[in-house]
Amino acid sequence: MNGELFNAVGIVGIGLIGGSLAKDIRTFGLARRILGWNRTRAHAERALELGLVDEVADEIEAVLEQCDLVVLAMPVNVLAERLPRFLDKARLGQIFIDVGSTKQALVDAVKDHPNRAAFVACHPMAGTERSGPDAAIDNLFRNRFTLLIDPQQSAPEAVDKVSKLWKSVGAVLATMTAEEHDRTAALLSHMPHVLAYALARTIKEAERNQALNARFAGGGLASMTRIAHSPISMWQPIFKQNKAYLLSAIDVFEKHLQAFRKAIAEEDDTLLNDLMK
Amino acid sequence: MNGELFNAVGIVGIGLIGGSLAKDIRTFGLARRILGWNRTRAHAERALELGLVDEVADEIEAVLEQCDLVVLAMPVNVLAERLPRFLDKARLGQIFIDVGSTKQALVDAVKDHPNRAAFVACHPMAGTERSGPDAAIDNLFRNRFTLLIDPQQSAPEAVDKVSKLWKSVGAVLATMTAEEHDRTAALLSHMPHVLAYALARTIKEAERNQALNARFAGGGLASMTRIAHSPISMWQPIFKQNKAYLLSAIDVFEKHLQAFRKAIAEEDDTLLNDLMK
Repeated sequence: MNGELFNAVGIVGIGLIGGSLAKDIRTFGLARRILGWNRTRAHAERALELGLVDEVADEIEAVLEQCDLVVLAMPVNVLAERLPRFLDKARLGQIFIDVGSTKQALVDAVKDHPNRAAFVACHPMAGTERSGPDAAIDNLFRNRFTLLIDPQQSAPEAVDKVSKLWKSVGAVLATMTAEEHDRTAALLSHMPHVLAYALARTIKEAERNQALNARFAGGGLASMTRIAHSPISMWQPIFKQNKAYLLSAIDVFEKHLQAFRKAIAEEDDTLLNDLMK
Repeated sequence: MNGELFNAVGIVGIGLIGGSLAKDIRTFGLARRILGWNRTRAHAERALELGLVDEVADEIEAVLEQCDLVVLAMPVNVLAERLPRFLDKARLGQIFIDVGSTKQALVDAVKDHPNRAAFVACHPMAGTERSGPDAAIDNLFRNRFTLLIDPQQSAPEAVDKVSKLWKSVGAVLATMTAEEHDRTAALLSHMPHVLAYALARTIKEAERNQALNARFAGGGLASMTRIAHSPISMWQPIFKQNKAYLLSAIDVFEKHLQAFRKAIAEEDDTLLNDLMK
């Protein structure tokens, strides 16, 4: 599976996901050169210092000009707004991928773009609550699913090379439609993040109001609120773009929580046992 | 801190907590002999095989007769029912501790017992989602709080020895009333467990109804549902005994979740930002 797939890979957004992918691309020798760009210049310099990238670009344009694979690891709102303009400049054979958590708004934004086929929508189902280049780790994608969204809208050669890239870093591939993706991600990822944020806020407020000491918490609470440390700037646009499916996922959870509440309130052991099974 | 504190320690219930405490008691040389009893005989045999205990007792009575420290690691409903009868047989200087997750019902059950002073109510805020003797691990209590409940109701020498025991295994001690404990535990532990169970059920049902594939989930969901693997038989009595505080903790969480839902539905970025901070 290894061997150079690309001449130059450009990582636009060298944080947890972009930086981890850069690390693996280097480890597995998948590109001759890795170029990086980051909105926060200090993060780009740090990525260079950490050896995640070979070079840092001053402007995204330099990445677009020099790279045959451009990895767009940006907040989903920025991505949907800018992808059409990036594709305007796509050269023959050049490939663009994203790694974002929502897909309908993104594929809608480029639906009729003449260079739509140069873009392969990807969602690696991997991550941690950390962010920035220092959060980049080896083998983040190994044995995790990477979802390819609406791949029939992309050039077969592009899908082929992108599939090889993900398989080379150990990911397991699956394909689905944007609609299927956003519904799935709402249940498996976005709604659980809202619960974690809401739980973290519940504890914070209880601490403030009742002098509850959260230091006493065991590992369960830490596990439940871990992902509430994920950056707001990344998650807010995800919640907005996937609003409909997210609200419905929250409502389904609510229904189940109320069933538990009722079983506990009525001390209905049989029901509670069924619910917990 | 080390050195023998007890002649013989009896572990009644050699699972995750009882077994881990037995391991540490041996490691730190805190007792000459460790005797074990378990309702499921196979678990007792397994504990012996794992070297968690020196000997397995056929009857709890043998543990009560032979041990100067009796650790009661049983479901909280069994504990509240049986502790008075155990205390009936307490010998001079003998100490009983529990490691349960609820305290009001327990301390109420022995409030007027003539041997109340022999009992020190303890709650180590440590654990994992695993259970049984194979779940026992070294240093489970290190750098975690162990809460001593209403210690003024226990003999000062008992509190002193029990405090030395917990400190010897690396725990940090804090004291509180049973009421304070149950309110705190509802927010920091019991309600988060209900959320985890409700989330696990939400995903299971969605999988069944909509052919959602939960295999696609990233680490976030696993982290949020980890504690839903905790044994039902242990948690059901906890939910029942701490019903009032638990229901109120669920309602506070509900309020916060609804605030998030509203901010997402109305795309109120300022509010959402405030809530997520």
